[in-house]
Amino acid sequence: MKNNLLCDIGNTTFSFSNGDKVSVERFDISSISDEVYYISVNHYWEKRLDMQENWINLRDKLDFSKYYESMGIDRVICCEAVENAIVVDAGSAITVDVIEDDIHKGGYIYPGFLALEKCFKDISPALEVSFNFEIDLDRMPKNTDDALSFGAIAPLISHIRLLSTSLPVILTGGDAEKLLPFIPNAKIDHDLVFKGMEKIIQGQV
Amino acid sequence: MKNNLLCDIGNTTFSFSNGDKVSVERFDISSISDEVYYISVNHYWEKRLDMQENWINLRDKLDFSKYYESMGIDRVICCEAVENAIVVDAGSAITVDVIEDDIHKGGYIYPGFLALEKCFKDISPALEVSFNFEIDLDRMPKNTDDALSFGAIAPLISHIRLLSTSLPVILTGGDAEKLLPFIPNAKIDHDLVFKGMEKIIQGQV
Repeated sequence: MKNNLLCDIGNTTFSFSNGDKVSVERFDISSISDEVYYISVNHYWEKRLDMQENWINLRDKLDFSKYYESMGIDRVICCEAVENAIVVDAGSAITVDVIEDDIHKGGYIYPGFLALEKCFKDISPALEVSFNFEIDLDRMPKNTDDALSFGAIAPLISHIRLLSTSLPVILTGGDAEKLLPFIPNAKIDHDLVFKGMEKIIQGQV
Repeated sequence: MKNNLLCDIGNTTFSFSNGDKVSVERFDISSISDEVYYISVNHYWEKRLDMQENWINLRDKLDFSKYYESMGIDRVICCEAVENAIVVDAGSAITVDVIEDDIHKGGYIYPGFLALEKCFKDISPALEVSFNFEIDLDRMPKNTDDALSFGAIAPLISHIRLLSTSLPVILTGGDAEKLLPFIPNAKIDHDLVFKGMEKIIQGQV
């Protein structure tokens, strides 16, 4: 059985299941003649690729009624990959979704850490900080930098811990490694989106 | 005993203990000849008022060693007002401080709700929202607007609840009313800063 070539298209990057990453500005359609299964949150590229015979949009195979219409397709696909888990996708935004017995119980959106750093800086130049992910969440902070790092991390973590009493936590996305030390028993899976895509291709969902 | 006139000067507003509020652009020093005790996070006005005989800066009477040097004086003063409490000051930023037996155990800073709305919008125009404070934190959201409101409110609330198992919560600041329904046994005190100032004037701290 040959491996399908899969592609997850974001607002900035084409991420392929073979590990290749290409920025949307530099991507050249003619560079790939093989069949590619893809999902895209990027409307421009989705429209362009829908006209290509070898690019197969998995959006058409998805049952969105299990989720909600405006939910990002990358988030839906990560949820499809698991049966019982809290899925935390930490990127430009951080999404937290609860899946129990293959059913999406709902989920929420928290700002990504880069966005939060900018948010603090916008409130006041005195609140400009680069978050410290070595912080101890069991000790209340006693200086401004730690107070900001703690404020960005501790509330999110305390809520994820609250949710995860009976479910394992799966972390994905660019900031997954930053969250890992704070969540006992969490696991990182950077291929979650490709696993979800493969499951849909195989018709297992 | 006459009531002291107190003033809390922020980046945008002079707030007086008699209820008067004047924007920093429109404030006229000559409009007040009475003695005024004040605190200021506004460096420009602090410098100007330090040259006025009838304006008494309470910064000089504070022992910052109990806190930390870069901590906002309004936040310090609110902590001085209580002996045992979680103080949540919900304004342009939301500060959460723990005071036990008159000792500041530390505190953190979370973005204010207006800043968080802007933060989401900056991540993606699809995430533009006006938060819904009627949201049920015990149900995971199933649409984008609720997912954003929940993401802004639930993590903060879950962490405050975690802290407040043995301490009462006192809410102050412009968004105190929005948080109240989510925190059982919390109380609002919009005069907390003036109570702290009065305590310092009386030399009780």
